[in-house]
Amino acid sequence: MSKMRIEHDLLGDREVPDEAYYGVHTLRAKENFQISGTTISAFPELVIALASVKEAAAQANAELGLLPPELRDAIVAACEEIRHGALHEQFVVDVIQGGAGTSTNMNANEVVCNRALEILGHKRGEYQHLHPNEHVNMAQSTNDVYPTAIRIATCFAIERLLASMEHLRSAFAEKATEFAHLLKIGRTQLQDAVPMTLGQEFSTYAVMIEEDIARLTEASALIREINLGATAIGTGITAHPEYAGKALAALRKITGLDLSTAPNLIEATQDCGAFVQLSGVLKRISVKLSKTCNDLRLLSSGPRSGFGEINLPPMQAGSSIMPGKVNPVIPEVMNQVCFEVFGNDLTVTFAAEAGQLQLNAFEPIIASALFRSFKHLTNGSRTLADLCVKGITANPDRLRESIERSIALVTALNPIIGYKQATEVATEAYANGTNVREVVLRRKLMTEAELDDALRHEVLTQPRAYEKAQKPG
Amino acid sequence: MSKMRIEHDLLGDREVPDEAYYGVHTLRAKENFQISGTTISAFPELVIALASVKEAAAQANAELGLLPPELRDAIVAACEEIRHGALHEQFVVDVIQGGAGTSTNMNANEVVCNRALEILGHKRGEYQHLHPNEHVNMAQSTNDVYPTAIRIATCFAIERLLASMEHLRSAFAEKATEFAHLLKIGRTQLQDAVPMTLGQEFSTYAVMIEEDIARLTEASALIREINLGATAIGTGITAHPEYAGKALAALRKITGLDLSTAPNLIEATQDCGAFVQLSGVLKRISVKLSKTCNDLRLLSSGPRSGFGEINLPPMQAGSSIMPGKVNPVIPEVMNQVCFEVFGNDLTVTFAAEAGQLQLNAFEPIIASALFRSFKHLTNGSRTLADLCVKGITANPDRLRESIERSIALVTALNPIIGYKQATEVATEAYANGTNVREVVLRRKLMTEAELDDALRHEVLTQPRAYEKAQKPG
Amino acid sequence: MSKMRIEHDLLGDREVPDEAYYGVHTLRAKENFQISGTTISAFPELVIALASVKEAAAQANAELGLLPPELRDAIVAACEEIRHGALHEQFVVDVIQGGAGTSTNMNANEVVCNRALEILGHKRGEYQHLHPNEHVNMAQSTNDVYPTAIRIATCFAIERLLASMEHLRSAFAEKATEFAHLLKIGRTQLQDAVPMTLGQEFSTYAVMIEEDIARLTEASALIREINLGATAIGTGITAHPEYAGKALAALRKITGLDLSTAPNLIEATQDCGAFVQLSGVLKRISVKLSKTCNDLRLLSSGPRSGFGEINLPPMQAGSSIMPGKVNPVIPEVMNQVCFEVFGNDLTVTFAAEAGQLQLNAFEPIIASALFRSFKHLTNGSRTLADLCVKGITANPDRLRESIERSIALVTALNPIIGYKQATEVATEAYANGTNVREVVLRRKLMTEAELDDALRHEVLTQPRAYEKAQKPG
Amino acid sequence: MSKMRIEHDLLGDREVPDEAYYGVHTLRAKENFQISGTTISAFPELVIALASVKEAAAQANAELGLLPPELRDAIVAACEEIRHGALHEQFVVDVIQGGAGTSTNMNANEVVCNRALEILGHKRGEYQHLHPNEHVNMAQSTNDVYPTAIRIATCFAIERLLASMEHLRSAFAEKATEFAHLLKIGRTQLQDAVPMTLGQEFSTYAVMIEEDIARLTEASALIREINLGATAIGTGITAHPEYAGKALAALRKITGLDLSTAPNLIEATQDCGAFVQLSGVLKRISVKLSKTCNDLRLLSSGPRSGFGEINLPPMQAGSSIMPGKVNPVIPEVMNQVCFEVFGNDLTVTFAAEAGQLQLNAFEPIIASALFRSFKHLTNGSRTLADLCVKGITANPDRLRESIERSIALVTALNPIIGYKQATEVATEAYANGTNVREVVLRRKLMTEAELDDALRHEVLTQPRAYEKAQKPG
Repeated sequence: MSKMRIEHDLLGDREVPDEAYYGVHTLRAKENFQISGTTISAFPELVIALASVKEAAAQANAELGLLPPELRDAIVAACEEIRHGALHEQFVVDVIQGGAGTSTNMNANEVVCNRALEILGHKRGEYQHLHPNEHVNMAQSTNDVYPTAIRIATCFAIERLLASMEHLRSAFAEKATEFAHLLKIGRTQLQDAVPMTLGQEFSTYAVMIEEDIARLTEASALIREINLGATAIGTGITAHPEYAGKALAALRKITGLDLSTAPNLIEATQDCGAFVQLSGVLKRISVKLSKTCNDLRLLSSGPRSGFGEINLPPMQAGSSIMPGKVNPVIPEVMNQVCFEVFGNDLTVTFAAEAGQLQLNAFEPIIASALFRSFKHLTNGSRTLADLCVKGITANPDRLRESIERSIALVTALNPIIGYKQATEVATEAYANGTNVREVVLRRKLMTEAELDDALRHEVLTQPRAYEKAQKPG
Repeated sequence: MSKMRIEHDLLGDREVPDEAYYGVHTLRAKENFQISGTTISAFPELVIALASVKEAAAQANAELGLLPPELRDAIVAACEEIRHGALHEQFVVDVIQGGAGTSTNMNANEVVCNRALEILGHKRGEYQHLHPNEHVNMAQSTNDVYPTAIRIATCFAIERLLASMEHLRSAFAEKATEFAHLLKIGRTQLQDAVPMTLGQEFSTYAVMIEEDIARLTEASALIREINLGATAIGTGITAHPEYAGKALAALRKITGLDLSTAPNLIEATQDCGAFVQLSGVLKRISVKLSKTCNDLRLLSSGPRSGFGEINLPPMQAGSSIMPGKVNPVIPEVMNQVCFEVFGNDLTVTFAAEAGQLQLNAFEPIIASALFRSFKHLTNGSRTLADLCVKGITANPDRLRESIERSIALVTALNPIIGYKQATEVATEAYANGTNVREVVLRRKLMTEAELDDALRHEVLTQPRAYEKAQKPG
Repeated sequence: MSKMRIEHDLLGDREVPDEAYYGVHTLRAKENFQISGTTISAFPELVIALASVKEAAAQANAELGLLPPELRDAIVAACEEIRHGALHEQFVVDVIQGGAGTSTNMNANEVVCNRALEILGHKRGEYQHLHPNEHVNMAQSTNDVYPTAIRIATCFAIERLLASMEHLRSAFAEKATEFAHLLKIGRTQLQDAVPMTLGQEFSTYAVMIEEDIARLTEASALIREINLGATAIGTGITAHPEYAGKALAALRKITGLDLSTAPNLIEATQDCGAFVQLSGVLKRISVKLSKTCNDLRLLSSGPRSGFGEINLPPMQAGSSIMPGKVNPVIPEVMNQVCFEVFGNDLTVTFAAEAGQLQLNAFEPIIASALFRSFKHLTNGSRTLADLCVKGITANPDRLRESIERSIALVTALNPIIGYKQATEVATEAYANGTNVREVVLRRKLMTEAELDDALRHEVLTQPRAYEKAQKPG
Repeated sequence: MSKMRIEHDLLGDREVPDEAYYGVHTLRAKENFQISGTTISAFPELVIALASVKEAAAQANAELGLLPPELRDAIVAACEEIRHGALHEQFVVDVIQGGAGTSTNMNANEVVCNRALEILGHKRGEYQHLHPNEHVNMAQSTNDVYPTAIRIATCFAIERLLASMEHLRSAFAEKATEFAHLLKIGRTQLQDAVPMTLGQEFSTYAVMIEEDIARLTEASALIREINLGATAIGTGITAHPEYAGKALAALRKITGLDLSTAPNLIEATQDCGAFVQLSGVLKRISVKLSKTCNDLRLLSSGPRSGFGEINLPPMQAGSSIMPGKVNPVIPEVMNQVCFEVFGNDLTVTFAAEAGQLQLNAFEPIIASALFRSFKHLTNGSRTLADLCVKGITANPDRLRESIERSIALVTALNPIIGYKQATEVATEAYANGTNVREVVLRRKLMTEAELDDALRHEVLTQPRAYEKAQKPG
């Protein structure tokens, strides 16, 4: 059995495994919150962010003469180790936890403290030399440390998602170029409409992602506003007047992020608006990615009795019973990621609305839902690009056929023969199983040369000038 | 019985009431969509927006020589009448409609056309002189007209909501000033925390709304990007190459809005991202307003056995059975508006995700959900300001008492006596039903003078410098 | 200008229009809640339900000797008039209201009272003869009257929706019979799978609705449990011990509904679980109806470049620009109703979760969201049946073709040639653009007679016995 | 480096680590779906359920003479090992996967097959002796195996949640008994209302859970209906006519569950209604648990400046900055679990609605969301019972005070002095800071004896008979 040391909190004495870098507060939290089995170490960027905040606070407090230099040095050294990946396994509290993140902050205080104690030449638990709350947490409260750390971790997550989205955008853009010459029928309401190129169709997917990249970048600005220095409720109680500014400067340097301090710290401490907004942007991204995947699955439906305009690269056998079947498994997995993001967004909404008075106690579930959305969207987008979009090929025969058989092609003749006549042409073509060209010629509405000109492929996919004004009748 | 005229569409001949300004397309839609009983005339700004688009299109087509001036003049005159409130009762299609808004567009085409026919000296239905599709709808498709009109109507709705939010913000800001001197205990996780002023508490509500005003203003920029000129699927088929630019110029003038044309019209025609984003911002606003109303109800709970820190103005008898009971009915109605906005946002999300290929056929329910959110938030915010916030009064006795009895006050002594000692003080004060001051003095941790200084009201609600560094132990 | 009478409440004296049957409480509520513009008279069944409750209460109180017979008679007479449609326009409070329904209950008390006063030969407002609270509301509280009335109105709404669903189910079932002989390819993950009949496909839609009818019927049992007699918080204060039983008996008789009294009235008064459950069932119904409409739109996609297996009846011109285009407008409107139900369900969830201690103050928005879902689902289902499903026709050529070209047909040969061989056959058929039959014969895996037997249409759509055990290898 | 063996699928040859029990299909899926990092082995009950299905199928096929007894025996032996916990680490596919669960089914086929091969004395990968698809998957498709396995796993999860809920219900019921004698003021809309006992208040929490236990039990009946025998799309292709019945019988025996076969297998194969319904019940449970936790946090708010009626057991230090602060961390963690369940329910809704034609390809995310909800609700309920409810104590002084100061107590006098008089009493008592008793006596509305009788504690918390009828005036 492992050796134990005794620690003390307001509930009394408690044995803590001697090899643990965490202490009594963490241990109680570990026992109290046995919900998901996923610990905060599953979000390495949150651990790194926590260490960054502790490091910045120590530097600020030392600059203000409130923390002795030797303690500062030990804290900083411990934080740097954690920022570089050490001791993450000591962050053992469940991601779903009560207490508004206090246990996460306490976990950080204790791990940093015990590692710093070692660096100072003491043993873990000898808090008379360096105290988790009095020194590591000096001038801090969970209520400013925790949201600040979440925001920093979120900034890292945004960067990774943006890279993944750009990767996907570029894959679609390349396909748009590759398919630029392939004319096909466009569809509205799943019904044959007017012509376009397959390249135009794929370019919209690239443009959508491009716009979402812009929206996500905008939302990240809100996230970079932190409330460090707010302490318990935003009044800055226990913090030195210059602390917030100094801690911010240190934190900007440590993280390399363009962070700023919120103008009203009381508001910033209780408000989860930026998370709601960000989650809303992830939802928006997912709405479009899901729609895009629906389209890919539809356009590749078949192979024989579907739209069959494109082929997705086969990634695995599609069926345990139907030999040779290949399914759109990659778009399907992306769809599911999107459905999960919708759910996560609702979780964030509920949690944000449930804040009361000077604090929102439910930030742990907000963080957990957001981090999951980020991770899955990032992985999903890259998977979609690499295992699906890049390998898509077109079926030129099907595409050509879709134009030739199209009745809605008659739309292009509207400016010449009018909507009413065009309706009759379309109705006859549909009823007789023939095409627009034949009916127009048979009815002598246009000459062959006029028709050829009006239906040239180049003019079907862009605006076009007609010579004369529409006359009544 | 009313006289009838005969009109014709692809389903054949059909009698239309002769006094109707709408025609056969509208009539079919009216019969097909008997769902909510609420017609598009319930959204007057949508009707005005539709007339604005029709007017702009007529001007552009006439400039291009495609529409004879006399027809243009008649269309413009008819549109102006509608924009000034005439004929709205002729917009009879249900707001919940299939067809991607086609019936709304057709309704507009027919009403404008028949009114223009009268202006030209013809009878309603004499479409040989002016045709709803060939002239009023010239160079247009539902797929560009309808989203453009929704966006214009939304711009108007945003302006009204912004005004209402500013009204509410200002009401909270005035209370913040009025209550600036009232010290009270702040609360985190519903537990007594550290001191703040009631003014600080109310200022956060003002700041939250101020930030939301900024977010809504940002989202409105996305909404002002229109796809007029896209026609059916964004390729601009049937439209003159210069049409989009000229129509935009006319529409900017008519509406006074800073509209622009989307850079990629194919993408813009199928994408509902801006509506999702906007709805997300309305959700964000509602998250905070609901939280604020929860706080108001909590702070005014009682009158005897609750928090009882503030009084909401009594607006009506609160109970049919409990005499003298007064309830927080105005915050309660606002809460419910917020719950509805959350629901509407989900409807928007589902509808947006369901778009397929070149079009989203479900914009009617997106519009309906958004317009309802806007209307109720606008009315709710104004109601909250005028019938509740402005009349709020404070209970100074309760507030004072909350500070005097507070145990968490000990937090202010952390920098002096340390977290560990402070914990023991708090525990003893709680156990013995006494207060922090007494315990600190009894334990001789500080002198009375030191205590007086540390607990001065001025220093409790802001950061503060302490002289000496924390020493270990 | 209309004559006024003076009424009094805890806020003081107030002029009420003399012709109004409602009184001061209603008037204040009307002014306080100017949110949606939709009044409770928009839900006639709620008004009828309120009158039913008031009538039942009067009878119970009179039986107990607490209400003089002549007052009882007047109240009952007034309630009967309202139940038969009179005075509904006097129910003027906004459906979105604070106060937990108090204003709706007060509105009912006042209208019943003033009409009863007239019946007794007095003038409106002469409450010394009959009082809205003391007599009409005797032994009642909003907190039992209002949820009871909502539940009764919901029972009526359920009955109508069930009839509409049965109508739709039957339409699908008829089509299933009509299409029973049409073989086609089934599809999984949008890829061609194994054979089935179009009749089997349509029968699933009928079965889904049948199951949902069963679920809705189950949920209605929960709704029939009322809390009348609970009064303010469920303790029955001010009510006679025999009141609840007598009021229930009267209410069962008046409404014809199999109502019962909840076993724990305190729980019943604060709990909205039955509404959450019911809303969940409406969501379930909508999930399936939306999926069904998606299928109908997919199967009818085309007409040329889509699945094209079925035709929906054309209901209106589909496009203002594309002549002859016909769109699936009826399934589309149903999809949108479903999206709205999803949103309404979320509103119900938020409102239900927000209940506090002995009451849920947010039942008005729960009622409003539920009633809208019911109305739109009822109208939508009937519309879908009558304007779409009944007129659906099949395209036998397309269906036959889908079978003949199918590669997945090879699945039927699995038990004979094995999954591995079958995979090779499928791969070759796909690569060479040929079909399964040809490849199997060419590879001499089966004789023509064996193939004919294995691919008989009768055996493709049901389980089948094979003679011999699969051997390894 | 590890040794490799070669396996083959439709994409060609592929090296598989020789020590792996899974094969090429699993390996491809593992590489294709790198999304969440959580593998299906994280849901041990799903793995057990899969093995149960494979075992039942083997028995049925052997009984029908289609699978040689020696192969049956090996498959059964392998499945039993897995059911008892072996080889779970071989289930390596991500829980978020495309392909409608095919990869999960393939993973099961391959692991069972390779273990069975070993049992037969062969090497892993020697599929000529026993084939994953031809033998282990005989007469099966992912489309019946996968939903059947999810349903079985869900049945196990329901049982565990029911036990946890009963544990929580019983904890509340015990507190209800313990607090039965403590009179307090009830509250509606957060305002003081009429009296009740703390026992009555706690009994409602027990009753709510009791009702939810009933609802969950009902929903579990729907879950026990399986579609095994449906094969690819419900037509039973490749399965023997007697297979479904025999497989059901075997599966009932193996699992001990009261399973049945769905009446319409085509419908059952594409329908996710039972999952939507079940998720809706989990949402209902969460609505009430969240409301209950909100109440617990409210009733224990303070300790000094809140409701302070009850004390939650302190579980850990509440703050890193505020010494001695104790927070309601256990209710808070339960709230967050509920918010997550709301999100998961939305994910399920989206995924269910997205089904198309003969299959829902999105069942993996449905399963993942449901399993997470089950796990967290089960753990959360037990945590709430053991670490919070059981340790709750009451503050009798506060409770008594709430009654003595109550103005709403006047409600009890309604039947005696009337609503109008009572309103005046309440208004005066509130204005003058006095109580109901004093005002009634001063106004000589009742004698002291009458008052004593009317306000006896026993009569305040239940219905009561009064002697005489209310007279007008």
